[in-house]
Amino acid sequence: MGGDFGPSVTIPAVKKALLAHPKVSFQLFGDSQLINQELNHHRVKSQSQIQIFQSEDDVKMDDPPALALKNKKKSSMRLALEAVRDGRANACVSAGNTGALMGISRFILKMLPGIDRPAIISAIPTLINDHVYLLDLGANVECDEKRLAQFAIMGNELAKCLDNIEEPTVGLLNVGEEEIKGHEKLRKASELIGSLDSMNYAGFVEGNKIFSGDYQVVVTDGFTGNNVLKASEGLSHYLSIKIKKAFERNWWTRLCGLLAKPVIGAFKAEINPEKYNGACLIGLRGIVIKSHGSANINATFCAIEEAVQQSHEKLPQKIRDQLERASGKLSDASA
Amino acid sequence: MGGDFGPSVTIPAVKKALLAHPKVSFQLFGDSQLINQELNHHRVKSQSQIQIFQSEDDVKMDDPPALALKNKKKSSMRLALEAVRDGRANACVSAGNTGALMGISRFILKMLPGIDRPAIISAIPTLINDHVYLLDLGANVECDEKRLAQFAIMGNELAKCLDNIEEPTVGLLNVGEEEIKGHEKLRKASELIGSLDSMNYAGFVEGNKIFSGDYQVVVTDGFTGNNVLKASEGLSHYLSIKIKKAFERNWWTRLCGLLAKPVIGAFKAEINPEKYNGACLIGLRGIVIKSHGSANINATFCAIEEAVQQSHEKLPQKIRDQLERASGKLSDASA
Repeated sequence: MGGDFGPSVTIPAVKKALLAHPKVSFQLFGDSQLINQELNHHRVKSQSQIQIFQSEDDVKMDDPPALALKNKKKSSMRLALEAVRDGRANACVSAGNTGALMGISRFILKMLPGIDRPAIISAIPTLINDHVYLLDLGANVECDEKRLAQFAIMGNELAKCLDNIEEPTVGLLNVGEEEIKGHEKLRKASELIGSLDSMNYAGFVEGNKIFSGDYQVVVTDGFTGNNVLKASEGLSHYLSIKIKKAFERNWWTRLCGLLAKPVIGAFKAEINPEKYNGACLIGLRGIVIKSHGSANINATFCAIEEAVQQSHEKLPQKIRDQLERASGKLSDASA
Repeated sequence: MGGDFGPSVTIPAVKKALLAHPKVSFQLFGDSQLINQELNHHRVKSQSQIQIFQSEDDVKMDDPPALALKNKKKSSMRLALEAVRDGRANACVSAGNTGALMGISRFILKMLPGIDRPAIISAIPTLINDHVYLLDLGANVECDEKRLAQFAIMGNELAKCLDNIEEPTVGLLNVGEEEIKGHEKLRKASELIGSLDSMNYAGFVEGNKIFSGDYQVVVTDGFTGNNVLKASEGLSHYLSIKIKKAFERNWWTRLCGLLAKPVIGAFKAEINPEKYNGACLIGLRGIVIKSHGSANINATFCAIEEAVQQSHEKLPQKIRDQLERASGKLSDASA
């Protein structure tokens, strides 16, 4: 029910996912009348793979998370997360209110041992090697070295799972590459991450290198990660408006624009943000994928694909194992 | 002598500045033989407005700041800063080692009362209103509310001076616009900045709004600011490579590229980073402009123009006055 478009986007995305993954089945939580309407409208077949669950409420995009948690106990979001908790579903995909999804996930699914709050992780495009995973994107505004090391472990497992890389290169975001740069927590985190077994840690990475493709995982605190991600969105928007205006200047530039349209289209397809939809709330005892509120059908399909892949790979269990292996070093750090 | 190109760029930039500002005179610090060569090579006239000072050493781009400060007492950088300290020059422009420029400026010029370290501030382009000043860009990785409030005061004065705006709109970078967002220091800083006289404070601003043009000054700690700025550089580079490749795909796209070249050129001219060259080390008892190491002649000219403008406006004195006016509130905050 969430996001800007609700079932009019989620249902056709489900249709697409059913075709791509014939063994996957869906439980849809929300207004069953609306859902059935959309299923009919989009002529979704294979309805044997679809179950509909009537919710009594929806978390609104601007509901304060604490109130959503307290007052909306039969919301579509909460019912979906309960299905994951009870083992009736392998993963939850939602385009709803991020703060509420975070709060309700934490309450319903609980955290993996040693983790206090989920981190938000998402892929962003890079020049070579296609993409990099950046975390945390805003859930943890203040992070000590232990938490940053947990992020490194979780990001590393996610990259291994989703991209089939044996040894992802992991970097820690800092204002310089030299060991003496940044504040003390960061230097301690660098030492701790470097000491972890089976971690291909490449040290500090500067902001301009995020998009280079030299790293598969870049770790930072949620305050910096959120601002870097949002500034990148803002800059992309700025540049797209400016280039559009450059082509609209006069009849000649408009003609050039017309001719160059397929090229600009190919360019846009390559950097298509839809591919990168599906942030993961990582560190929970279950799989929760946050689709962007403005996600269209293709983007929502990508978020569903991510859920499918994480389920196949049993990502939470893998993260749990790695956190256990590192628990000695992590608890030494916090001592 | 600094930057990637030394006098081969600084001298023609000086020539351009002499034409644009016939009342400005220059003191050039460095290898006088090299400087004279370049002056002759570029046929710089009005040499009555140029004085050359032979330095005995140069700070290298990779010199550790502490060593540059201790061992290079006759470097071109230091001699230039001493000229500002002694009132023989109104401002210093350098394309050299940022860390060393920071350390030596701090030692030679000293800080304004109440300021511990200079902040780095620079203009970045926006959709409307041309540009926004972002600070700190990396000098202060950890900032309490008092320091963030000082940044707001300094940024506010700089925007008033350079852009002739009576009441710049000032925002504080955060992970959300709501008052409850972010960590405690940030909420305290927001309250403190909001309480300052003659400050048009607009509250928290999210990363995607930096480029919107809704703000003239955006304040953040040096860790976040540095990473946001560098990530923006990285993203711009990524997008420019991708668009170039899109036009290089085959003979047809190459033809389109040829036709669209003037449009892409106009686009590039509009977002031209040269215009935004000239970061200011702010909070010192003198004017220090840091030109980018890779700055070309036009970009270096822009950095010189900024120095001229700040000198005309007596920026350090204005900041000093505002810090004094706010000193009660700032010291209450640190109590």
